[in-house]
Parts: sequence; C-alpha cells; structure tokens
Amino acid sequence: MKGAHPLPKVSETRKDAVRNDILEAAGRVFKRKGYEAASMKDIVAESGRSFGGVYLYYANKEQLFLELIGRVYREMNESAEGGEGTAPWEAVGRFLRDQLARAADADNGLAPVLYEYLIVGRKEERRMKLIGERHDAVFGAIERLLRSGAEAGTFRPTIPVEAIALTVMSFLDGMFFESIVSGPERIRLDDQFRVLSDMLRSVLMPGEASAVTEEGNPE
Amino acid sequence: MKGAHPLPKVSETRKDAVRNDILEAAGRVFKRKGYEAASMKDIVAESGRSFGGVYLYYANKEQLFLELIGRVYREMNESAEGGEGTAPWEAVGRFLRDQLARAADADNGLAPVLYEYLIVGRKEERRMKLIGERHDAVFGAIERLLRSGAEAGTFRPTIPVEAIALTVMSFLDGMFFESIVSGPERIRLDDQFRVLSDMLRSVLMPGEASAVTEEGNPE
Repeated sequence: MKGAHPLPKVSETRKDAVRNDILEAAGRVFKRKGYEAASMKDIVAESGRSFGGVYLYYANKEQLFLELIGRVYREMNESAEGGEGTAPWEAVGRFLRDQLARAADADNGLAPVLYEYLIVGRKEERRMKLIGERHDAVFGAIERLLRSGAEAGTFRPTIPVEAIALTVMSFLDGMFFESIVSGPERIRLDDQFRVLSDMLRSVLMPGEASAVTEEGNPE
Repeated sequence: MKGAHPLPKVSETRKDAVRNDILEAAGRVFKRKGYEAASMKDIVAESGRSFGGVYLYYANKEQLFLELIGRVYREMNESAEGGEGTAPWEAVGRFLRDQLARAADADNGLAPVLYEYLIVGRKEERRMKLIGERHDAVFGAIERLLRSGAEAGTFRPTIPVEAIALTVMSFLDGMFFESIVSGPERIRLDDQFRVLSDMLRSVLMPGEASAVTEEGNPE
C-alpha cells in the first residue's frame, strides 16, 4: 500500500535457513511418531519457535511432510540422472549402490513414514496424486537412464525399457519395505542387490558375462 | 469335576463353522477400517453374534488378525510347494502366476492391513516375530522350490539359491505394495511379472533362450 511502512525485510537466505530448521524439526517428529500421530503442536515444540513463527512458513503438517518427501525423491532422481558423461552400466551401478545405502538405512529415514502415509491414506485420491507425481519423476529418471544406454547401443534390452524401469521401482520398494520391517542384515540386503544387479545386466546386456558369480565377486 | 453335569457338547465341525464365521466377519472389518482403527466391538457387530459368543473363540483382534494372515501365508506356501511331480520351471511359473493374480487384487485382500500392521508396529518386537515366522515359511517354500530344481539339474543358478529366493520375496512385496497404492494397471503389473519371470529364468537357467521377447510373447 502506498505510503504504508514496509515490513522489515527478511533476506531470502535467512528465510531459507528458517524453513530448513522447521523442516528438520518436522522430520525428527515424523520419524519419532509416524505421520498420523504427529501434530503441528509437536513440530512447533520441536522447532523451539512460536506457533506464529512456524505457521508463517507452513500451514499444516501435510505441507511439511510433502516438502520433506519431495527432497527424498529429488535425491533419488539426481542419483538416477547423475550418469551424464559416465558409461551407461557404470551409471546404473552407481544408482543401485546409492539405493543400497539408502535401503540399508531405511528405518532411520522417512521411508516408514511415507509407507504409513500411503497405506493408511490409499483411499484418498489427493494423497495418491501428490505422491504419484514425485514417484513418477523418479521412475522417469530411471527410464531415461536405461533408454540413453539403449540409444548409445550399450544396452540391447530384451524387454521394453519401460517395463524394466517399473520393475526396478517395485524391487526397490520391496527392499526398502523389508529392510524396515526385518532389518537389512536379516534379509541379506547386500546379496539381494547383487542379484538385482546381475538380473538387470542380463536383460540389458544379454549374452555378456555375468559380473556376479557363484563365488560371489561383485563387479 | 466328578458328579458335575457335563457342558452340552458342541461338535468340532460346528465349532469350526463358528470360528470361520467370526474370522470372515473380522476380515471384512479389517479390510474396511484397517488394523489400528478396527475394534472387537466392530467385529462382534459384523458377526451378528453376542460378545460372549465371540470371546469364547477369540480373546482379541490381534489373535483374529494373525489367524487370517496365517491363512494367506499358508496359501502362498502351498502355491510354492505345489510343484511336486511338475517340472521345476513349470512349478516356478505356476507360483509366479498365482502371485500375479494375488497382486492384481491386493487392494481387496488383507495385504494393506498387513502392511499397516507391520509399518505402524515395526518397533514392537512381538509383532515382528509373529509375522516373521509366517514370512519365513513362505521364503522357505520358495527356497526349496528353487533348490529342488537345482538338485534335479534343471536349474544351474549363477547366484546362491538363498539370495535368489530373498530377492523374489522383496520383488513380490514391492509389487503388492505398488499395486495397492497405484493400482495394478498403472504400474503395468502384467509387464512387471514378465520381466521378473525373464530375469529369474536368466539366473536359474543361464544361456537358455529367453521366454519373453521384445515382441512380448510370454512363455
């Protein structure tokens, strides 16, 4: 409004730092309590700020949760896209190793909260749509990774690339899930990743010698 | 007690029928409300019986849930063990087709309730132990199926059978999960099962022609 005093300026850097603080507090609360049981009251208390100070940035816990999950998917996405300038199979291997590290630590991350949000809210179209978009972005990145290898002639997939990418997503989902409920050692997560890697190689580069042998030498 | 009147005899067949009725009522309630939100009150109402008539058979909702889940795992188990007298790869194929049918209908079964029970209760050792035993039974059946094919000389696995069996379990878990949250068509469940089948064949019978081709002819 003309003539009105301008509000004191808060720099964008400062705002980002505050947002990050609140997000991190929310992440700790979600990990501790799960999605349904967590409340904005918990998050405000955890952040050490005032109610107003938090609501200025985030209207509700779902907004906070979606931003946190968005970060997780963005990292997965970047991991799948980080293959530029790298040989296609090296890029796939790097992506798989990143996912192995994530899956081994899944119980300490946001994956359990995400699974709770999805399973409990599976009848809510809005939730599914919001998560679906993030999920599709990762799927798209994996598909591009496989496709670029096929276009370069390194991969000669025996099955359409889209089906392979979907299968990799299911696989990862299952391994994250089992790692959370049974623990990464009990399900022998390392072994499973070697099997995944070997199977994937067999459909992407059929006829080439397997990297995983009965003696168990990876790569 | 000597001399006391014996209770009126209820035949075992009749008892089994009552148990089954109560279990089916519990199944409907769990599917409708999920695990945490369901109560014995709901189950009693759904069964059309008296409180006493239900508690005579089941002490709490967890007992009912575990018996229902036990049935599901028993069916998976039987499907993996139904291969006697069948060629090993046929038996694997039959098991995979059974699981495909289950996964396509996962949202209407007890899988979502099981996932909720596991994710929400992942810190409760007792829950994990109870489900872990049932899970291990299915895993064991898959492992035996693969091992018997290896002993017969039909399978020449390039990777230890135990690691392959664990990987199949993760895969199935992921596909059930994605089928529930995204729907079987959206994740192209049929295609994924073809990929799983093809990958599995490649590690069990390396060097043999693939059953799934770019043209998409299964088996």
